[in-house]
Amino acid sequence: MNPIVGIVMGSDSDLPVMTESAKRLKEFDIPFEMEITSAHRSPVRTSEYARQARERGLKAIIVGAGGASHLAGIIAAETTIPVIGVPIDNSPLSGIDSLLSTVQMPSGVPVATMAVGKAGAVNAAIFAAEIIGTSNPAMADKLATFKIELEKSVVEKSEKIKRDFKV
Amino acid sequence: MNPIVGIVMGSDSDLPVMTESAKRLKEFDIPFEMEITSAHRSPVRTSEYARQARERGLKAIIVGAGGASHLAGIIAAETTIPVIGVPIDNSPLSGIDSLLSTVQMPSGVPVATMAVGKAGAVNAAIFAAEIIGTSNPAMADKLATFKIELEKSVVEKSEKIKRDFKV
Amino acid sequence: MNPIVGIVMGSDSDLPVMTESAKRLKEFDIPFEMEITSAHRSPVRTSEYARQARERGLKAIIVGAGGASHLAGIIAAETTIPVIGVPIDNSPLSGIDSLLSTVQMPSGVPVATMAVGKAGAVNAAIFAAEIIGTSNPAMADKLATFKIELEKSVVEKSEKIKRDFKV
Amino acid sequence: MNPIVGIVMGSDSDLPVMTESAKRLKEFDIPFEMEITSAHRSPVRTSEYARQARERGLKAIIVGAGGASHLAGIIAAETTIPVIGVPIDNSPLSGIDSLLSTVQMPSGVPVATMAVGKAGAVNAAIFAAEIIGTSNPAMADKLATFKIELEKSVVEKSEKIKRDFKV
Amino acid sequence: MNPIVGIVMGSDSDLPVMTESAKRLKEFDIPFEMEITSAHRSPVRTSEYARQARERGLKAIIVGAGGASHLAGIIAAETTIPVIGVPIDNSPLSGIDSLLSTVQMPSGVPVATMAVGKAGAVNAAIFAAEIIGTSNPAMADKLATFKIELEKSVVEKSEKIKRDFKV
Amino acid sequence: MNPIVGIVMGSDSDLPVMTESAKRLKEFDIPFEMEITSAHRSPVRTSEYARQARERGLKAIIVGAGGASHLAGIIAAETTIPVIGVPIDNSPLSGIDSLLSTVQMPSGVPVATMAVGKAGAVNAAIFAAEIIGTSNPAMADKLATFKIELEKSVVEKSEKIKRDFKV
Amino acid sequence: MNPIVGIVMGSDSDLPVMTESAKRLKEFDIPFEMEITSAHRSPVRTSEYARQARERGLKAIIVGAGGASHLAGIIAAETTIPVIGVPIDNSPLSGIDSLLSTVQMPSGVPVATMAVGKAGAVNAAIFAAEIIGTSNPAMADKLATFKIELEKSVVEKSEKIKRDFKV
Amino acid sequence: MNPIVGIVMGSDSDLPVMTESAKRLKEFDIPFEMEITSAHRSPVRTSEYARQARERGLKAIIVGAGGASHLAGIIAAETTIPVIGVPIDNSPLSGIDSLLSTVQMPSGVPVATMAVGKAGAVNAAIFAAEIIGTSNPAMADKLATFKIELEKSVVEKSEKIKRDFKV
Repeated sequence: MNPIVGIVMGSDSDLPVMTESAKRLKEFDIPFEMEITSAHRSPVRTSEYARQARERGLKAIIVGAGGASHLAGIIAAETTIPVIGVPIDNSPLSGIDSLLSTVQMPSGVPVATMAVGKAGAVNAAIFAAEIIGTSNPAMADKLATFKIELEKSVVEKSEKIKRDFKV
Repeated sequence: MNPIVGIVMGSDSDLPVMTESAKRLKEFDIPFEMEITSAHRSPVRTSEYARQARERGLKAIIVGAGGASHLAGIIAAETTIPVIGVPIDNSPLSGIDSLLSTVQMPSGVPVATMAVGKAGAVNAAIFAAEIIGTSNPAMADKLATFKIELEKSVVEKSEKIKRDFKV
Repeated sequence: MNPIVGIVMGSDSDLPVMTESAKRLKEFDIPFEMEITSAHRSPVRTSEYARQARERGLKAIIVGAGGASHLAGIIAAETTIPVIGVPIDNSPLSGIDSLLSTVQMPSGVPVATMAVGKAGAVNAAIFAAEIIGTSNPAMADKLATFKIELEKSVVEKSEKIKRDFKV
Repeated sequence: MNPIVGIVMGSDSDLPVMTESAKRLKEFDIPFEMEITSAHRSPVRTSEYARQARERGLKAIIVGAGGASHLAGIIAAETTIPVIGVPIDNSPLSGIDSLLSTVQMPSGVPVATMAVGKAGAVNAAIFAAEIIGTSNPAMADKLATFKIELEKSVVEKSEKIKRDFKV
Repeated sequence: MNPIVGIVMGSDSDLPVMTESAKRLKEFDIPFEMEITSAHRSPVRTSEYARQARERGLKAIIVGAGGASHLAGIIAAETTIPVIGVPIDNSPLSGIDSLLSTVQMPSGVPVATMAVGKAGAVNAAIFAAEIIGTSNPAMADKLATFKIELEKSVVEKSEKIKRDFKV
Repeated sequence: MNPIVGIVMGSDSDLPVMTESAKRLKEFDIPFEMEITSAHRSPVRTSEYARQARERGLKAIIVGAGGASHLAGIIAAETTIPVIGVPIDNSPLSGIDSLLSTVQMPSGVPVATMAVGKAGAVNAAIFAAEIIGTSNPAMADKLATFKIELEKSVVEKSEKIKRDFKV
Repeated sequence: MNPIVGIVMGSDSDLPVMTESAKRLKEFDIPFEMEITSAHRSPVRTSEYARQARERGLKAIIVGAGGASHLAGIIAAETTIPVIGVPIDNSPLSGIDSLLSTVQMPSGVPVATMAVGKAGAVNAAIFAAEIIGTSNPAMADKLATFKIELEKSVVEKSEKIKRDFKV
Repeated sequence: MNPIVGIVMGSDSDLPVMTESAKRLKEFDIPFEMEITSAHRSPVRTSEYARQARERGLKAIIVGAGGASHLAGIIAAETTIPVIGVPIDNSPLSGIDSLLSTVQMPSGVPVATMAVGKAGAVNAAIFAAEIIGTSNPAMADKLATFKIELEKSVVEKSEKIKRDFKV
């Protein structure tokens, strides 16, 4: 099946974080592709990827990058499909650099920014599913089921600590 | 026409920022509604708004809030449609509080965070259009045209400063 | 004995921090309960917990959460009993996200915010005791005794380093 | 009637912020007193104020201070009644100095910290009312009514912007 | 004379800051050109500008941009000539977003970052002169003279306050 | 009388802040001198000033500077007399740059850092008086009197708001 | 010999940092004493220590504390001798809380703040020596010798890396 | 061959970071020298190094330092050749102190600041090569080749994860 979500990262060192997006998309049975390309080291390749995304049938692009992370913004500059940014904390500044570089986009070119690190990578996949769900009721229903499971897991954990807890 | 995007804000003091979202949606001919509701002052109302959003036909909810801005996260907790957060800089801390409260969502419940303030409100509307564009080629084409106009406006400004500029 | 303080946390990963609140309440012989519930993953359950707190006899609710920690604010939105927030440093941003999300509450809905992490969890329990002490002189006396012990322990430590210290 | 809440501030320049606490306490018919005393300029006076607070019948002390705001912590050091801190943004660092100096208290001596500035001063008064409400059902009922009014005001504002709003 | 330095900015709103670079280059008699082009709104144009810079004879490119300022990085990605970045403080976050987006470049693609705002724009021009001076002794001598004038101006100001100062 | 305290600043734009040091030294009858010299624009002059300070009879040097404020550190590098740093908030980053550049000195070369801005300039003068007071009992007594006046002024202000305050 | 410098810390957990002050004072043959006392846990003891410092012959007090570190400010409030603050990084916020709580003192009560952590503790001792040196030429000469040794050690290290360095 | 680039660091503890500059210069066959000298511990030596740099034939000086890192600014104050600053994260504040101390230079004396830590050290060397390349076409060509290799390495990594990746 053709991929409908792209997971793009600036370097293979981002893989441990971005794997979380992949896992979650798999659980939702959303076909995806993974790509390494850099705004700074492979700008032409990045630009081509962005420009072809719509005609290749992608519905969303998840982009992970650290430091002065320009990758999500640069891809958003050259496509009309939604770009979801995952700031990665791989510099000495703990990800605040990556967060601000991803989220503070100027008027005209949005990047949908998620939390820094793994939580953000998981949520990027869920958000991609939500986008798909806007035109695909089955996907929206899957998300509704997923929410019920989230709640169940909270209840189970709460019951567990009530049984187990001894100060 | 029924609204397909909701613009929600926590207080009427957020209106000068969130008006930017409304203007932009209007330019894209996207029907929308505006609502004030607060995560903290009207939690039941907020919860109902979120739960009914999907069946009421919304495709995206844009949420603006300042300070410890929980509104986007709380709405995202109770709907499967995409929630887009706009942090507003109305506390003494210049919006960093609002940005972190909006973006640092835990695994399971994403909020697509935009830039702090007016740039973010504009981009939230464009991002809503991109989501709609994933299943509506006419909207995607409008966005492609919009991108061309963005570029033209840059060229015009550049030509202007070349003519005008005297140190 | 019925619990008069609730300790609520967003996830079982917060338990190592929130255990500190439990330990201290136990030392003060204050009956308490522990609950896991999430503002984002189990919003209905959270809302019910908050709404029933007063009639169930709680005098204070201690809430620990990390990242964009909305839990304390959301509980405060639906109860009139004092809510004490403990920011937890479990994201790459070292707890500043959690602190600002907890403390920067808008006019109308206060959350009494403590220090980030374990010191905050300990102090949340002491603060709950202080609240109880406002109508319970025995508890206020216990706190007065506790303060004397704090001072004694400082004196002992000071004497120890004077004896031991060799550069 | 004897005051049951103290509003303490480090300098008369803090008055425009701390007036918000006073206004709100008045609306709740809670008798209060106002005091200027400084942790650094009048330490003995501050210490005496704190030590006598309980026997003078205070149920809570609201403390506002800016910069390296030690006042709330120093008062908390010498009383067993709840101390509520309001960080004030009167230094070039926009209140982050005052927030961290107020909230990051060590184990043993809690300060219930509110938002920076006026929102925090309003909420300090509401939180004092919540403390009183734990042993005074009439006050708790007032707070419940106050919450209903907060919600009503949100609904009215929402209806107003729906009527008024023209992009 | 052909320009040997390019001054590039993302928007005409950056002109009041970037004019400082232009003024200073003029004082050094360094021929320059000014260009508006955006990493996000005119990516192709930006890319072409960068790729042609070397063969067009530029020795340095000064780039000013605000918010998530990707422009300097994107130009540096496609040229081998030195790129000098000037972070501009035009977002609610006071330029820290722009500083981190400009300076935290990944291994392989440097951007020589200057101070935020006008001081940075002045220094970008001086730094461009220093680069030119590495192969042009006359320019290096001009810089040496400039340094002597800087010192003189300090001495004059010092003498003036000694004469004028009355507490 | 020969000056025993030097007030040094990097630029005449720092004068409105550093005047506060001068005023306070005058009130304490401490003879002082004022100097403009820059770590970056007049390094040789700065170095000479520092090296001659001790033999010229100075007991302390108060140094004010903004941005990447190296001036205090550079003077401290070349003298054995105490250097007191006053960070000045004259860059877009509100003084946090100046504070960190002044205070984070490496092992071996201390700078006694005061608060950012005018409060810091006032305190620098008081601290200089405290240094002088370590070998001059009359000065120490003046400081004791000054402390009593500080306390009196607090009491007066407190009485005033008690008379005046009407919500 | 009677101590002329006090090293005070809020808790025995601060000892590994504050030992650095002690070591350095010993190298300068400056008699000192060590004390644990807390602004919050032993306020009366702290206050007494501060008030008796001058008559007990102390020339400077070095104070180390972490988190919302009020200790240096509280001691400075009750003495006229110079107080030197060492912020300690023992909270999840990496010492920025401690730095701001120590340095941002209000007009009237200075604390001479050093760098966060061990470098600050070393420098506090050197700064105390500089204060003593203002009235004790032998100490000032020791400091001059110390500066020469610092420089020598730099030269030696530089020579070593020139010999050793192989990429 | 005479060195044309200087690598200067404040302490031998900076060597693990600054080695990255050395490695990269070696790969580009750029002759360099390494020096330890401190703005604070060896100011005269530092000053002499800076003043002789131009006549000794250096084309650029790379300077690494941590904390309140004044070294790059101080060298820039006394030379007309380009100074490239590498902030090093060796204090408890994670390098933000070092970044701001290096980059926020006042008008008149630029320091070309790189990213914090190793990425910055690598890029400093590449930037030095770019400066040399402005008058040395062979070096500029080497940089062009280096850019092609950067891109190739991205493509290879991308192909590898496509082959290897299994969620």
